[in-house]
Amino acid sequence: MQMRVMGIAGSIRRGSFNRALLDAAVELMPEGMEVAPWDRLREVPFYDAALDTDELRPEPVADLKRAIAEADGLLIVTPEYNYSIPGVLKNAIDWASRPGYKSVFVGKPVAIMGASGSMMGTARAQIHLREIMYATLARVMPHPGVLVNQAPQKFEDGRLVDEPTRTVVASFLRDFQTYVRQMQGG
Amino acid sequence: MQMRVMGIAGSIRRGSFNRALLDAAVELMPEGMEVAPWDRLREVPFYDAALDTDELRPEPVADLKRAIAEADGLLIVTPEYNYSIPGVLKNAIDWASRPGYKSVFVGKPVAIMGASGSMMGTARAQIHLREIMYATLARVMPHPGVLVNQAPQKFEDGRLVDEPTRTVVASFLRDFQTYVRQMQGG
Repeated sequence: MQMRVMGIAGSIRRGSFNRALLDAAVELMPEGMEVAPWDRLREVPFYDAALDTDELRPEPVADLKRAIAEADGLLIVTPEYNYSIPGVLKNAIDWASRPGYKSVFVGKPVAIMGASGSMMGTARAQIHLREIMYATLARVMPHPGVLVNQAPQKFEDGRLVDEPTRTVVASFLRDFQTYVRQMQGG
Repeated sequence: MQMRVMGIAGSIRRGSFNRALLDAAVELMPEGMEVAPWDRLREVPFYDAALDTDELRPEPVADLKRAIAEADGLLIVTPEYNYSIPGVLKNAIDWASRPGYKSVFVGKPVAIMGASGSMMGTARAQIHLREIMYATLARVMPHPGVLVNQAPQKFEDGRLVDEPTRTVVASFLRDFQTYVRQMQGG
């Protein structure tokens, strides 16, 4: 059985390092695992509980929830904005997390990666994202994560070319494959 | 000199408790201080660095930055979504925080309040918001903050009616008035 992972990059900028890091994950997935990027983040309107009904829920939100529900796991690749995750990513998580404690996130294995130009490589954003995902009852893989710092030196023409980083990403994805299987066996 | 505080509520839902809590602050401000709500959060598009240029920057973003620059202080009233602040609020902060370490937030006194239906009263969201604002070099008032829990019991027809809570808000605003003066005296 092929393991299907949904990939979300938290930056909508064209040429984003985080979107390129998600591409690297697509390329470096271990055998038996595939990742499908979900690239509709900017189409999700701001969360408004008044719109969160079966009649009014926006179509991109319904598609987001369907994609999460159908995936065996979720790979989130986030930039760091002001020590936390971008609003566009938080907004999508807030929609998908409803209804609280009964959403498509419940029990879903989640892995976190991130890239930034700084030395910190999104370390603080990943801490926030982990706390945020705990609230959804998703199963964030307990792991130091993938922190790609000084990103401009590691990508060329939108491709991750730094070999040590490619090795780390490949190893991280193998760990995630094992973790998803463990979660499915419970 | 009248002290001018800009107020932002982090929820865009009509009838939001947090927007009503901001109204209570308008009502309970001490003499010499006024608060002006800025209600254009939903008009701010998702942050995209490619649009963050003098030519392309969206008008609501320019207005947001102007309002922050002109205010003596900033009062942020946030709900808690998944242990953190809503995406719509984070998104506006990300726009206003640019360029990094040189934005309109630098040195700006900030006070944080929040309301929620839970027992926690946005305690976790406020911790995240404080960390986020540190990154902007704003001066978040060191204070336990205003945590309005079990909100449905404390508001009636969009008005904060719980007397003990009204007393806490009024006291908090007096503390903020002193804090803004201290920051201005530096």
